This record gives sequence, structure tokens and C-alpha cells, in this order.
Amino acid sequence: MGLREVKRERTRRLIADKAFELFTDHGFGRTTVEQIAAAAEVGPSTLYRYFPTKETLVLEFVEDCLVDAVAWFRDQPGLDLPDGLQAVIERVLEQLEQNPDRIQAVFELAEQTPSVSAHLNELIWRFRNDLTDELVRRMPGSDPRDAEVTAALAAGIAMNIIETVVRVWAEDLDGIDVRQLARRSMTLLRTGGIPLPAAPDQVRDNPGYGT
Amino acid sequence: MGLREVKRERTRRLIADKAFELFTDHGFGRTTVEQIAAAAEVGPSTLYRYFPTKETLVLEFVEDCLVDAVAWFRDQPGLDLPDGLQAVIERVLEQLEQNPDRIQAVFELAEQTPSVSAHLNELIWRFRNDLTDELVRRMPGSDPRDAEVTAALAAGIAMNIIETVVRVWAEDLDGIDVRQLARRSMTLLRTGGIPLPAAPDQVRDNPGYGT
Repeated sequence: MGLREVKRERTRRLIADKAFELFTDHGFGRTTVEQIAAAAEVGPSTLYRYFPTKETLVLEFVEDCLVDAVAWFRDQPGLDLPDGLQAVIERVLEQLEQNPDRIQAVFELAEQTPSVSAHLNELIWRFRNDLTDELVRRMPGSDPRDAEVTAALAAGIAMNIIETVVRVWAEDLDGIDVRQLARRSMTLLRTGGIPLPAAPDQVRDNPGYGT
Repeated sequence: MGLREVKRERTRRLIADKAFELFTDHGFGRTTVEQIAAAAEVGPSTLYRYFPTKETLVLEFVEDCLVDAVAWFRDQPGLDLPDGLQAVIERVLEQLEQNPDRIQAVFELAEQTPSVSAHLNELIWRFRNDLTDELVRRMPGSDPRDAEVTAALAAGIAMNIIETVVRVWAEDLDGIDVRQLARRSMTLLRTGGIPLPAAPDQVRDNPGYGT
């Protein structure tokens, strides 16, 4: 990272931090972009360049950690799929774990504010789609449509583990080790400890989209 | 159902149908509650009694079919968890399958309208929570916290299957048999065909929340 980028990144983080303080103290709806800009000592137009909407300010660190985890996985061609999925889950949680206050604030704001909930949902789907694409890329030779569905299910299950353990954790930040709970969940899933839907008969060779 | 309830249900359905036509023709944002009420030949206050927000109008049939499936499961104490989960998934899809136009409209409206996306997300979480509660109820004797996490993961995986196959189907309504695709997905999941995260070592007996 060059000096210029370091400075940009520092500004970006300062704005997000100040915004978070204001949202927590005064509520999302009652905090204006002008107030955030003033607190961060930048002009509103600078703020908009970094964060086009207030929602992106709330969810900045969630987005960063989801995007980082998939980018990291992309750079590990040697990992097989199970190890890769495990590592992606652990990386996301490792970063979320460092921001317990924000996690709670995100849940609260998402509950109160439809636009925050919608944006969070969008980030989650972007993560699922990006992870799906990366999994498909690592499944050469499969029928493309089969690979797409298989990868989408695998990405959905990974996200499901993250969402489930983070929700449990958000209700008891001090009492729960979120990464340990995730590891336990992965182990249960692998060892038959999670009830899965029964497998219907006679369908193995009929995917339902007429190959 | 008494005569009065039949009439109520008919009115409710008529309003939802008219609303859907107007949303499709003129867009969600440009359709007013007054226009919907006029098209259904009821007063706005009657409409509000049935549907407190425009979002509930768009998502009425999604909500109905998610709620119905869990209610049905509650009434089948004899089903074991795998058969129950399979049946819940099939019931949801059976009902969605009858409304392909609305499914596509829901995806479009949710993409354009944060409040619709947020409400859809809320319905999905309500389904996950209700299904989780019912699964917990059927896991007597387990440690309550363990049961909660296990059930939440199972419910999340069931919803993940529904979401994934419905998304694939929404892109190609005529080419895909959505229930067949779901059956295929369940079979793949049961037979090791979906890559799952690796199970970390040495964690089986440490759930991460100290007991």
C-alpha cells in the first residue's frame, strides 16, 4: 500500500468509526450525513465519495470481512473445498469477533431500519454468490448446471453456519466463544449431528432440469 | 371454516390479487393503497385491516406458504426429523410452484425496493425461527443450548435448499422442475455430494459456551 492509500484507508476508517459512535448515541434515523462529516472533520462530499449511503457506513466492516474472506480463498488454489470452506468461515468470524459492539449495533439497526436490513441481506447474498462462483471454478469437469446448484448449496450452508453462530453470540457476547461454536457446528454437521432432510428415493439421476 | 371466515378469506385474496396486478403493471412505488382498494372494491380502511403495509401485500402468498408448512409439521408428531424436514421443504415448494408469476415479481420487487427485501428477509427468519422451535420441541433430553444451535442449523439448511432451488427456478420457470431439483439437492446433501466445511479436530466435546 502506498502512502496515499494508507491515508485514504485511515480517512475511511475514521469516518466509519465516527458514524458508528453517532448511530449508537443518537440512532440511525436521527444522525445526518452532515453530522458524521463534521465529527470526522471532512466535507460531506468527501464522505459521499467513501460511503455513498448511510447504510454502507453501518455495514462497512461486515462487508469488508465477507469480501476479504472470499478474496483470500481465491488466492489459495491449493486448498481443497472442505478445508477452504472451513477456513473461509473461520476468517469471517475471526474478524467479526474483533467488533462485538458493532455486531450488536448491526443487529439492532437492521431490526429497526428496513434499508439497513435490506443492505445486510444484499451483502450476504453477494458473499454467497461470490463464494458460489469460486467453488464452481474449483469443480472442473462437472456439468455446469449441476456444479452451480451444488456450489450454491455449499455456499449457503457455510453462510448458514456463520449466521447461526453469530446470532447466538450476539445475544451473549461474553459467554460465547463464537469460533469455538462454529467449529463445533462444523463437526456436528460432518458427523451426522445435524438433522438433514431425508433423501427421497429414485432421484439421483434426475436433476429436474432435463440434461 | 364458517361462512364469515370464507368471505373474509375471499376478500383477502381478492385484495392481494388486485394489488399484484397493479404492482406488475405500474410498479410497486407508483401504486397507491387507494388504487388497490378501488380495484378490489373495498374501502382503504378495510384494506389496512387485512394488510397493514404494501409490503405485506406483495409477500402475502410467500408468508402463507411458509407459515402453513411449519403449522402442518407441528400437527405431525409421528414424523421423524429427516422426514419432517423433507416434507416441509416439499410443501413450501408445492405451494410456491403454483404461483410462478408472483415468484418472479417478488424477486424483482425485492431487488428494487429495500422495504420489500427487508420484509421478505423477516419472513424467512420467522420461518427459520418457527421451524427451529418445532425441531427443539422434538429433541427432548438434549442440552437446551445444544438443541437450539443444532435445530437452528437444521432449519437454516432446510431454508437454504428452498432459497437455492427457488432462485434457480425463478431464472427459468419453464425449464425447471423445482421440486425435482429440491429432491435432487436433498439426495446430494445426504450422500456426500455437497462439499461441507472440514470438521476441525478436538472440538467434539467443547461447544464453546462452557458447560
